[in-house]
Amino acid sequence: MNTIEICLTHELLNQHELKSKIVVITDVFRATSCMVAGLASGVAAIKPVIEVEECREFQAQGWLAGGERHAQMIEGFDLDNSPFSYMEERARGRKIAMTTTNGTLAVNKSLEADEILVASFGNLSATANYLKKQARNVVVVCAGWKGRPGLEDVLFGGALALELEESFVFDGDSTHLAVATYQVAKEDLLTYLQRASHLQRLKKLSGGLDIPFCLEKNRFDVVIKLNEEKELVVNTLQA
Amino acid sequence: MNTIEICLTHELLNQHELKSKIVVITDVFRATSCMVAGLASGVAAIKPVIEVEECREFQAQGWLAGGERHAQMIEGFDLDNSPFSYMEERARGRKIAMTTTNGTLAVNKSLEADEILVASFGNLSATANYLKKQARNVVVVCAGWKGRPGLEDVLFGGALALELEESFVFDGDSTHLAVATYQVAKEDLLTYLQRASHLQRLKKLSGGLDIPFCLEKNRFDVVIKLNEEKELVVNTLQA
Repeated sequence: MNTIEICLTHELLNQHELKSKIVVITDVFRATSCMVAGLASGVAAIKPVIEVEECREFQAQGWLAGGERHAQMIEGFDLDNSPFSYMEERARGRKIAMTTTNGTLAVNKSLEADEILVASFGNLSATANYLKKQARNVVVVCAGWKGRPGLEDVLFGGALALELEESFVFDGDSTHLAVATYQVAKEDLLTYLQRASHLQRLKKLSGGLDIPFCLEKNRFDVVIKLNEEKELVVNTLQA
Repeated sequence: MNTIEICLTHELLNQHELKSKIVVITDVFRATSCMVAGLASGVAAIKPVIEVEECREFQAQGWLAGGERHAQMIEGFDLDNSPFSYMEERARGRKIAMTTTNGTLAVNKSLEADEILVASFGNLSATANYLKKQARNVVVVCAGWKGRPGLEDVLFGGALALELEESFVFDGDSTHLAVATYQVAKEDLLTYLQRASHLQRLKKLSGGLDIPFCLEKNRFDVVIKLNEEKELVVNTLQA
């Protein structure tokens, strides 16, 4: 049987062997939720980049620039980090250069993997079904927040592992942490997260439609893959 | 209210501010279980050291030398890493220099804290009761295994947090991961760990009395503290 293991934050990536594996990166609030929503809605490609300046260079060549710094929209950019922005008409058919604090960093640290997917609750089952067909070992990389584990990302890891339970072995203690936490939270992810995030994160979780949207399962039937040009695109060969 | 936060592995200690806090270090299999059992049974003091050679230097001065490398007893040492060894008659009244792969490292990385305790399931409630009286912020440092989180250490962190639930705020997502996992596992910690550890760790968890002993709660009514000489001793001022 193949294995699935969960890396709780990109800060712990050095503890995981990525070679010859499929890496699934998740940053539920909100980078990978934006990527999945946008690409499923007709965005042509999204290039994850580290630096704001790099985004501006792509923007000068006709791309859209998107992303956030400290959860704020960046001056002169076209798109913030709300998944709804990435689903707008003006983004369809366009390429987007996107910079985010944690999600982009996780993608760039995972390049030695054989294949990189990004995923969120929006394409949970589509991603799980794809992985079942590949028969490869999987590492879920939780982007986290400033190097710390983020509960929402770990919950996604637990949810994905449970979808793969019958055909994969759970590898490593972190995988069991994620699965157990998802079992406790799964009946109502939003309420669980709100109760758990009493401090600074409460503000981030209250108000607006973004957060419930990011936690909604299986709105999109797409698999998102990093291609050879290091751009995220809808995988058209879902075999 | 004071806060309790859990650091999932010493590899993530840079994510936690320790200054002016009480750090509780746990390495359930088996360093801190040995320390608690030994000190509660009459060992005079245990000095955690990083290097095997340093242990030998203390041994030459009349101390006992204890610890493990890769879960094996070290040549020429007096004690291995079974908690039962530390409870033997020959250890009573003696000082022990102890080196372990993860637990000692966690102690040595936590020295900037105001106060360092070590704990395990054996003195769970004694430690919790002490912390309730201190009215200080607490960081539980899970030693882990080669930099990765260890499920048994995180379970101890979750158990301690739950004992403090009424008088402390759970701070940080890792704390919620630990609490949720403990809630899933608490009915039968050993069975949960055996089911979760299907690979190399299964061998470590099968056979012998050490593992059930390390998971047994509240056999000892002692608080273990690092003193000014950097030795672990029974706290005699349990106010």
